[in-house]
Amino acid sequence: AGDAAAGKAKAAVCAACHGADGIALIPGYPNLKGQNEQYLVSALQAYKAGQRTGPNAMIMQGQATGLSDADMSNLAAYYASMK
Amino acid sequence: AGDAAAGKAKAAVCAACHGADGIALIPGYPNLKGQNEQYLVSALQAYKAGQRTGPNAMIMQGQATGLSDADMSNLAAYYASMK
Repeated sequence: AGDAAAGKAKAAVCAACHGADGIALIPGYPNLKGQNEQYLVSALQAYKAGQRTGPNAMIMQGQATGLSDADMSNLAAYYASMK
Repeated sequence: AGDAAAGKAKAAVCAACHGADGIALIPGYPNLKGQNEQYLVSALQAYKAGQRTGPNAMIMQGQATGLSDADMSNLAAYYASMK
């Protein structure tokens, strides 16, 4: 599993859309609070691998491109840990 | 917005993976409980449109193919309404 503390440090940019508390500020974006860690990792990987396309995916493709595998598992651990 | 009651009737098959309470039974799948309605609609549309591909998307592509626009908004309303 990832390191939630390291994920928190990485999540500053995510909070702009997904909220500091993991509740999305924009209704078209998902809440991440308490989401399944493994699912979050696979979603980030899918954005990075170009397996999620279309107008709603573009921003996340850009975000995920810059993430390492460790970043992804840490971010996933962080949001999954939010209760 | 969709009709949560109609969504509940449609959600029987979804519960097998996403849980009757919207908490996924399988860690690689997302919890849907309290997720943003608009996001859920766009995710279902993306699966149906083939904009979500790769190994983790195949099951949902199959599920979404059979859904009408009304089904999608009703299912989204149903899961978003879960508190």
